[in-house]
Amino acid sequence: APMSRAYNFSAGPGALPEPVLRQAQEEMLEWRGARASVMEISHRDKAFIELAETAEASLRDIMAIPANYKVLFLQGGATAQFALLPMNLAAPDQAADYVITGAWGEKAFKEAKTLCSARTAASSADSNFTTVPEVSTWALSDNAAYLHVTPNETIHGVEFYDLPESSAPVLADVSSTILSRPLDVSRYGVLYAGAQKNIGPSGITVMIVRDDLLERKPRPMPQILNYKAHADNGSMLNTPPTFGWYVAALVFDWVKSEGGLKALGERNERKAQALYAAIDGSGGFYTNKVDPRYRSWMNVPFILANPELDGAFLKGAEAQGLLGLKGHRAVGGMRASIYNAISEEAVGVLIDYMREFQRSHG
Amino acid sequence: APMSRAYNFSAGPGALPEPVLRQAQEEMLEWRGARASVMEISHRDKAFIELAETAEASLRDIMAIPANYKVLFLQGGATAQFALLPMNLAAPDQAADYVITGAWGEKAFKEAKTLCSARTAASSADSNFTTVPEVSTWALSDNAAYLHVTPNETIHGVEFYDLPESSAPVLADVSSTILSRPLDVSRYGVLYAGAQKNIGPSGITVMIVRDDLLERKPRPMPQILNYKAHADNGSMLNTPPTFGWYVAALVFDWVKSEGGLKALGERNERKAQALYAAIDGSGGFYTNKVDPRYRSWMNVPFILANPELDGAFLKGAEAQGLLGLKGHRAVGGMRASIYNAISEEAVGVLIDYMREFQRSHG
Repeated sequence: APMSRAYNFSAGPGALPEPVLRQAQEEMLEWRGARASVMEISHRDKAFIELAETAEASLRDIMAIPANYKVLFLQGGATAQFALLPMNLAAPDQAADYVITGAWGEKAFKEAKTLCSARTAASSADSNFTTVPEVSTWALSDNAAYLHVTPNETIHGVEFYDLPESSAPVLADVSSTILSRPLDVSRYGVLYAGAQKNIGPSGITVMIVRDDLLERKPRPMPQILNYKAHADNGSMLNTPPTFGWYVAALVFDWVKSEGGLKALGERNERKAQALYAAIDGSGGFYTNKVDPRYRSWMNVPFILANPELDGAFLKGAEAQGLLGLKGHRAVGGMRASIYNAISEEAVGVLIDYMREFQRSHG
Repeated sequence: APMSRAYNFSAGPGALPEPVLRQAQEEMLEWRGARASVMEISHRDKAFIELAETAEASLRDIMAIPANYKVLFLQGGATAQFALLPMNLAAPDQAADYVITGAWGEKAFKEAKTLCSARTAASSADSNFTTVPEVSTWALSDNAAYLHVTPNETIHGVEFYDLPESSAPVLADVSSTILSRPLDVSRYGVLYAGAQKNIGPSGITVMIVRDDLLERKPRPMPQILNYKAHADNGSMLNTPPTFGWYVAALVFDWVKSEGGLKALGERNERKAQALYAAIDGSGGFYTNKVDPRYRSWMNVPFILANPELDGAFLKGAEAQGLLGLKGHRAVGGMRASIYNAISEEAVGVLIDYMREFQRSHG
């Protein structure tokens, strides 16, 4: 590694595995036998179609995606799906339930309100999004088109997998938790994720959708916004983001080489536990306010008891090669995003720095 | 250059300037002082915002974009805009005029029909899209929301810039002609282009839009589909495709270093004229059927008098390092896409090959 690459705790776009970047670098001018960059060849080229199929097969393997789910590679980020999911799955007057446990769920709900009868089934806004409402308290609509959840809230650092018995399919924005641990796909109707945390560069969106949901026709709409049309065309209804797809394929290979989601999940749990232990053990110098049952393994927000030290903390961190730690403006303080590409060593360096900073400023 | 990089005539994603690929390669693990890949840093990072602003300023400079136009960097390709343009600019019952000179204009029209009262003002379908209907024959609607044209049809190889006196703003899909020659932006209300021909990798879309058009509110809609919301947020309403934006910025620098659109236009005209002359001079062995007044400088379809030779032509071309020449299935035969990154030398090699092939198979 060039010695100057930092420990990158950016919330997204975030750190990618270095072997993936090295391979992309090596192949930048000539990809395999293409005699061109992967960016310069048609998505209809046989070699690219093979890449696309291999990427899907890898993801199916890694996540154990059942055969009755389609895998789509789309554009627009998770945010575009906040609008396209209700457009594709709910009639204009139909109820759709939203469980809101942070800023992203709130955004999804807001977009859906323009398209269907979206309702808040549960919200932890009263706690400043530091916990998850008990499933037994969720107020589910009769005949809801779907139930929408955000299993990991990137800004608030709240993660959960509890779900009710519900006949409505569960739609889950897994942008910041996908590939970080094993997940039972069959519990969800739709899983979707912007790539820029654990999959690849921004600009490509992965969607895993149960195939019966693609048959819904709740309103007339243009083809390009219609998931079924994308599925019927192998995510090549129009020119897909080919370079992002390529990097995603490399990341899937890397996930396999690291031992898959079980091994990554164990590593991610160790990373998170070490960091939360350091925060909790700081005697209040650092604090994370999230209900311990729902603390995210991926995004760890924490505040300094004395916010006047924030600037010095960030400056000192940068000097140690620890970047991307500034918290989101909605929460303040710090946030360490410890996605798959962040090693246990990197988390250790961060913890050492936090202790040292406390010693010199405590 | 690695000696094995081909002459790449792909219609898109297509060839990129080699110096751009080399710089992207060099910076893949560490971009400037970021201590990370440009793919791994937040779009809110100061360095990335500077990149975004510089890219816009470069494009404004290159295209002489007037101050009352906004420049947006979006997702979804031109195809997504086929739906989003009517959503943003036309009321559900409002007329919108389409001039159809090839497959892409046809697609745009089809999508618009689901969203407004889209009408065909003129079409050259009867000629198999080998010409452009005279402007005087276009049947324009009263009070149309807009007039839509496709200045260059990538599949049919038809290019035109004639426009009527019209009070309706002209919307133009310039995916395959943007940056290939000087263009008077002020004649258009919206210019939009998928990046994957003359701008950068697929997955990023450039839109140049006159600012008064952003004030139209023809229907309620979600924020993420609303151009005004993107404009108000500097194209960072949600996470943009940062790597594509970065490559686009490098391409804009390259365009400047090549002398800008005047120099590129002259070079592109020479390339096209040489290739059409070779086709027309082949005594019918090769044919391009497009009305000479409207022959594209970017996409040159041609057929062999004997289609049984197609396979041999393509095989021989590949052996000479000439790739991406297979014609679109809608037209058949061959197509040479000679975008900005294709040198005059490359066109010369193609012409030499065509002559040699004719000698040995004629």
